[in-house]
Amino acid sequence: MSKQAIGVVGMAVMGSNLALNIESRGHAVSIYNRHRDRTDEVVAQNPGKRLVPTYTLEEFVDSLEKPRRILLMVKAGEPTDATLAQLKPLLDKGDIVIDGGNTFFKDTMRRESEMSAAGLHFIGTGVSGGEEGALHGPSIMPGGPREAYDLVAPILTEIAARAPDGEPCVAYMGPNGAGHYVKMVHNGIEYGDMQLIAESYAVLHNVLGLSNEELAEVYADWNKGELDSYLISITADIFTKKDKETGKAMVDIILDRAAQKGTGKWTSQSALDLGVPLPLITESVFARLLSALKDERVAASKILKGPGATKFDGDRKAFIESVRRALYLSKIVSYAQGFAQLRAASDEYQWNLPYGTIARIFRAGCIIRARFLQKITDAYERDPKVNNLLLDPYFRDIATEYQGALRDVVVAAVKAGVAVPCFSSAIAYFDSYRAEQLPANLLQAQRDYFGAHTFERVDKPGSFHNDWS
Amino acid sequence: MSKQAIGVVGMAVMGSNLALNIESRGHAVSIYNRHRDRTDEVVAQNPGKRLVPTYTLEEFVDSLEKPRRILLMVKAGEPTDATLAQLKPLLDKGDIVIDGGNTFFKDTMRRESEMSAAGLHFIGTGVSGGEEGALHGPSIMPGGPREAYDLVAPILTEIAARAPDGEPCVAYMGPNGAGHYVKMVHNGIEYGDMQLIAESYAVLHNVLGLSNEELAEVYADWNKGELDSYLISITADIFTKKDKETGKAMVDIILDRAAQKGTGKWTSQSALDLGVPLPLITESVFARLLSALKDERVAASKILKGPGATKFDGDRKAFIESVRRALYLSKIVSYAQGFAQLRAASDEYQWNLPYGTIARIFRAGCIIRARFLQKITDAYERDPKVNNLLLDPYFRDIATEYQGALRDVVVAAVKAGVAVPCFSSAIAYFDSYRAEQLPANLLQAQRDYFGAHTFERVDKPGSFHNDWS
Repeated sequence: MSKQAIGVVGMAVMGSNLALNIESRGHAVSIYNRHRDRTDEVVAQNPGKRLVPTYTLEEFVDSLEKPRRILLMVKAGEPTDATLAQLKPLLDKGDIVIDGGNTFFKDTMRRESEMSAAGLHFIGTGVSGGEEGALHGPSIMPGGPREAYDLVAPILTEIAARAPDGEPCVAYMGPNGAGHYVKMVHNGIEYGDMQLIAESYAVLHNVLGLSNEELAEVYADWNKGELDSYLISITADIFTKKDKETGKAMVDIILDRAAQKGTGKWTSQSALDLGVPLPLITESVFARLLSALKDERVAASKILKGPGATKFDGDRKAFIESVRRALYLSKIVSYAQGFAQLRAASDEYQWNLPYGTIARIFRAGCIIRARFLQKITDAYERDPKVNNLLLDPYFRDIATEYQGALRDVVVAAVKAGVAVPCFSSAIAYFDSYRAEQLPANLLQAQRDYFGAHTFERVDKPGSFHNDWS
Repeated sequence: MSKQAIGVVGMAVMGSNLALNIESRGHAVSIYNRHRDRTDEVVAQNPGKRLVPTYTLEEFVDSLEKPRRILLMVKAGEPTDATLAQLKPLLDKGDIVIDGGNTFFKDTMRRESEMSAAGLHFIGTGVSGGEEGALHGPSIMPGGPREAYDLVAPILTEIAARAPDGEPCVAYMGPNGAGHYVKMVHNGIEYGDMQLIAESYAVLHNVLGLSNEELAEVYADWNKGELDSYLISITADIFTKKDKETGKAMVDIILDRAAQKGTGKWTSQSALDLGVPLPLITESVFARLLSALKDERVAASKILKGPGATKFDGDRKAFIESVRRALYLSKIVSYAQGFAQLRAASDEYQWNLPYGTIARIFRAGCIIRARFLQKITDAYERDPKVNNLLLDPYFRDIATEYQGALRDVVVAAVKAGVAVPCFSSAIAYFDSYRAEQLPANLLQAQRDYFGAHTFERVDKPGSFHNDWS
């Protein structure tokens, strides 16, 4: 019997779509699922595809060429450990397991070390693009031993998305947890992007009173310029959709209670651990949590009054352009924070992350794909060690030119009582980062006053304590 | 030989001051330190005090009445585990160890369970007030087995601070990690309070151009009203202090790079784990991290230009009052978030935290002591189950009356290019929390569009997926 070059464990939608993607590139694929019914279902739903069903892990492992290449697409967390424990005794030295789940990077670091101790290769891989991406080409962020990556690179390259210039959206991120870390920050950035778009919607709808039809036009228009991106394009599309049951706009039928799966939270928690300021993404995580308090909010809306209705009496077209600029600059601030976090993580865990390449493989396949990512790649080509993307000439010029618009939008929203936590956080970060002097001297004075925590002086090095009494 | 009712392990400044505090209430106190030199030094520096030096843990344990009461004041983390491991074999069933360090609450939960399995009592206790508080009366937040607390309550009550009405600032918080959790949130609130004061300083200094002398007067004046608190009073005092070396104002000699010890970070990370929106305190943690990037900021200040200088041409006295109101309302928003977090933690860990009592024991001894805490106690007396402090009539009225001032201050700061991350975050939280409708319907539409994550509908219960194509 002929053996397959690769197999996939876990036939939920991401796993089966990745198997079909691999198959579509000319490979027969072994597949396995904990419940055999689902294996049979996937085979039956895809007649003529070279999916080779197996019904025990032994049979699955036996069906693969050596060194075996196994793509694990099971639920992140305990199920991954359970599957690895079952697989390990069946594998031979040099076999490769790729975990393509949304795994917490520290779990990947631990598992890579355990697998490596057993002579096995473990590649923790971020996969972004949702169901469609999995099927037609996701953005792929693999991390693990370089020599193991080289053995799976050909297949990963075949199934990856292609950027507009034809480049495949996959690249080696670094050892152990690097790939899952990059995917985590990708997701954090996605939270920020989505919340910023939501705030632009809130401002356009509540301050200007734009209808859904007008909103669809605005976002479609924005998608032709600097903001050209998957999320803006689907936003434009969403505002055109009607609910089949009621005939109302779909967006008005959907309850304003956002859910989440935890990767945004991880990003913020890791930033806090690394000591990296990541306020924008963190505000976007908290914004989802606030939205989830729907019942409390409805009750509070009857008790807590806002500033009262005001009529917008400025130039509407100019204000829409201000919102566009506010959105673009805030997005830049968010990515500047996210990439600063990548740098801190790379230093902490000695990953040597390829920042420009990361922006490059985000250009297609993944949820945050956008024209603007090329600008980040360009920035790292100009200066691979740039401390903060805001310092790059392109982004600096945008910041200089667009900050007035961002200030105007925050001012208008704050006056109107429309919450813009991420727009506000963006301008606060910008004004803090470019501040030669912050009021933290007072914090240090207070800390020394009540706790003798000492301070530094502006005029000489060292650590000092003042006798405040 | 007579035995002591209590002993203290760890003679760093907090430990020795607490030992002296206990001694001052009429108790002889056994003391022990890992390095005997320090033990001797403490005894030598305090002639006539009934401090009983011991030089081995065996000798220390033997010197105590049963059940033994041992106050552990060693460095949080590994040193606490090491000391407990040495102590455990020397103790008898029913003995009580009180950990008064700044311990992470999950460590306390683990240790309480380990000690309890050995028949020993473990009381994780928050102690706030710095060196002075330790010596003269701190705010004390004990958590652990109720019956063990009762055995140490008399001594803890003697050494605790006294509120203006004479009530001791100590109370039983709940089982296992409850005390250290409350202390952690206390510290997070302290971060928020300090950053809010720093932002008020930045606005008054940079927008109005107030001198240090004028600032000292403003804060002294504020300290006579609603803002009456320890932190405002030391802020007023700080602005009067001169550096002895240079004759310049002390606050201008201190470098604007704030340090931290991690409890603010823990508070934010725990809020994220619990799913509680805690944006203000989290922004204050990030503000410290941004301040720490002093060299980057100085470099960025030469590259990133702000909105340009503007001259304030309004009513200066009225604007100072607006800043005061902005500070008070923002502080209320911060405490509303912190107490919502306490409620979520209490539910998660089944602590049954006494919210009104917590505000009561914060009224003296600790860093965040303030007249306004009585208002929180009052609110919980009016409605022990209030979801959010902003809904209480007193805080609601302040919010209604002061929100205009907070909006004005944020608007002025954003226009002037002065970073006010926590003021901005306060108004964003207020406007989100009181929003019947947030733009999270768009987030859910996007999530369903790209990931089939489903959504809820406004018109009927259930979980729905739309075919967006």
